[in-house]
Amino acid sequence: MKAEIIAVGTELLLGDILNTNAQYLSKELATLGIEVYHQCVVGDNPARMRETIETGFSRSDILITTGGLGPTADDLTKEIATEYFGEELVKDEKALKQISDFFKKINKEMTDNNIKQAFVPKENATVLYNQNGTAPGIILSKNEKIMILLPGPPSETIPMFENQVKPFLAKTQEVTYVSEILRVVNIGESKMEHMVKDMIASQTNPTIAPYAKDAEAILRITARAKTEEEARNLIAPCKKALRERLGESVYAEGETTMEDVVISLLKEKKQTIAAAESCTGGLVMATLIGCSGASAVVLEGCVTYSNEAKMSRLGVKKETLDQFGAVSKEVAMEMAEGIAKTAGTSVGVATTGIAGPDGGTEEKPVGLVYIAVSYQGKTEVKEFRFVGNRNKIRHRASYQALNFVRKMLVEID
Amino acid sequence: MKAEIIAVGTELLLGDILNTNAQYLSKELATLGIEVYHQCVVGDNPARMRETIETGFSRSDILITTGGLGPTADDLTKEIATEYFGEELVKDEKALKQISDFFKKINKEMTDNNIKQAFVPKENATVLYNQNGTAPGIILSKNEKIMILLPGPPSETIPMFENQVKPFLAKTQEVTYVSEILRVVNIGESKMEHMVKDMIASQTNPTIAPYAKDAEAILRITARAKTEEEARNLIAPCKKALRERLGESVYAEGETTMEDVVISLLKEKKQTIAAAESCTGGLVMATLIGCSGASAVVLEGCVTYSNEAKMSRLGVKKETLDQFGAVSKEVAMEMAEGIAKTAGTSVGVATTGIAGPDGGTEEKPVGLVYIAVSYQGKTEVKEFRFVGNRNKIRHRASYQALNFVRKMLVEID
Repeated sequence: MKAEIIAVGTELLLGDILNTNAQYLSKELATLGIEVYHQCVVGDNPARMRETIETGFSRSDILITTGGLGPTADDLTKEIATEYFGEELVKDEKALKQISDFFKKINKEMTDNNIKQAFVPKENATVLYNQNGTAPGIILSKNEKIMILLPGPPSETIPMFENQVKPFLAKTQEVTYVSEILRVVNIGESKMEHMVKDMIASQTNPTIAPYAKDAEAILRITARAKTEEEARNLIAPCKKALRERLGESVYAEGETTMEDVVISLLKEKKQTIAAAESCTGGLVMATLIGCSGASAVVLEGCVTYSNEAKMSRLGVKKETLDQFGAVSKEVAMEMAEGIAKTAGTSVGVATTGIAGPDGGTEEKPVGLVYIAVSYQGKTEVKEFRFVGNRNKIRHRASYQALNFVRKMLVEID
Repeated sequence: MKAEIIAVGTELLLGDILNTNAQYLSKELATLGIEVYHQCVVGDNPARMRETIETGFSRSDILITTGGLGPTADDLTKEIATEYFGEELVKDEKALKQISDFFKKINKEMTDNNIKQAFVPKENATVLYNQNGTAPGIILSKNEKIMILLPGPPSETIPMFENQVKPFLAKTQEVTYVSEILRVVNIGESKMEHMVKDMIASQTNPTIAPYAKDAEAILRITARAKTEEEARNLIAPCKKALRERLGESVYAEGETTMEDVVISLLKEKKQTIAAAESCTGGLVMATLIGCSGASAVVLEGCVTYSNEAKMSRLGVKKETLDQFGAVSKEVAMEMAEGIAKTAGTSVGVATTGIAGPDGGTEEKPVGLVYIAVSYQGKTEVKEFRFVGNRNKIRHRASYQALNFVRKMLVEID
């Protein structure tokens, strides 16, 4: 099966918005084993829309459109697609009710032009009711041609695809595809690929694919089988072998983040944390506090840019600052111990470094960052040399600080 | 003139990467007055690439490709385009030297397959030498057809377009387009559009276009004229009229951010700042410290989640916490005053609120945030009710905290 993704909207052609739907849908279709050879973007124009549908069906079995289902006269994806399939549009009472309910929910008045959105093709169509917006999606299916019309906003497109389109497409495929993810830290994508190269090359089911993601890397293991259970059984031994190969670099499985892992570990081990930040300037705290429920374990943080603040807020000794400088192992350690002590937490994490672009010297260049973690009376410190601009360095340092906390929590019991 | 954007690469069709080049190029072409009716994505496949070029030239004057200029056998954009134009590829010594110099710069060894990248069409071509990577770009121009081949990585595509392609395209247009931007805060896109609706409708040169951007909105004024100076003269009275209409909601012009404006104001007025954050949990500090040179004016910050921290770090009174609760105007004000006092800064900013998803009550619902700013002995506080999920609420609160600081700095002299 071949599918083509068609995004409809002048705002995409003007560059006002980014076509994130195309990426999302391509990734999902790949997981389902449906091939995508073309993506395109076309404006809200009847002639070009017709041409795009005709070209699409000349080379693909399934066309998936996003956008052009709105209430205004401009929005014509549904009208042109229905005409192409030789169908007529009729009012769908369930869709109308769902639209008026949606307006009630968001406390806004429904206008007459929204009634247009409740019209759906009379035959050969499945209506995809929309829980997150007004436009219902539609699956048109006739003469071995399938056209799936989805709304444009990702907050509507994604849940509709996930809950309604994916099960439909999975049925058209004779097999099921299941993916599992290993999250790998401190090994770049290319080094990781090198470490498991032979496994990637020799495996056909499941397949193993490496991806780079900001500070970390991901291995996606995808199996195809008749049932989900069979697929998971194919994945299990492969995952085990990869975990053995990569060791403790695998920090988590599935859709999660480093900060979620740290917060979960803190909760599980009944520990609390506080952060003292210099070069990361609040990023470690802001990232941790982004996890809901963080307030139970993240007690406080200090951004201590100046030496005075390091002394008054954290109790860093004047002699240590004088002897080693603010960017040093010794100061990082006193900061980590100081924040844990003054905040009354069991874990203290501290960063001090040079994020640039100014302030670097030969001895202490831009990118040099010391990170210390104090946990259960033990304080460890590491030196990092990050590359990139100011914000890259700060984000990398913040990520490594969280990873350092994770390791201490895992290792010390 | 009509242009079409063609992104080449299997990684786009698999959803591994996001097609940000298409957005960038569309926006730039719109500024140049070149219309884009189609964007497409095609894999590294000779037959489909040929078909895409033919379809493209059947409806557009200019085709711009991104990607497929790499050193491997997969990469064939240049080969297929050269063949389409009936040209042959020859080695370009300047390109070869530039490639080998690039490898020296990044301290890596050049491999033989990189020599392929130094081959360019013998005639009817302009070579776009690449300062940021190995693949040179190429402009092929023959029989009123123009094809512009750009590398895929945005760090190479953008500077090459900006410095080499834009001047080339501007020459093909008889006029120059110049845009200026007004940045507007605290008025949504639709309200702003309503306020200047008549001006948008009546203006043809310059044109006025509103855009939404996270917490703020933007007005883009675009004029076309023979010269840049003429265009700027057309923009000036329109910009003045818009500024009068929108008043102090216009917080800046051009490409800048709220945090840059705050840092510049602090430097200009020789003031220093510290932040005490509860619900924003470090975001205000992290955002400010993201500006290079922030360390001169941003002295320190405290994330005081617990009542104990609010008392010990900031000197918030126990009675105030007991009487009004942590999320209250009174506590926000004591936090702002307390951080300025303990940090020894002239400006103190504080946030306290309920970011959710838990912790809300009927009286103090999720989204309720108090922000206070203390400046030159005067402390002001505001109540906000933000909507959205935990992170939206935290980002909106952080943005409004910075805007509040900006207003105090502008108003009090």
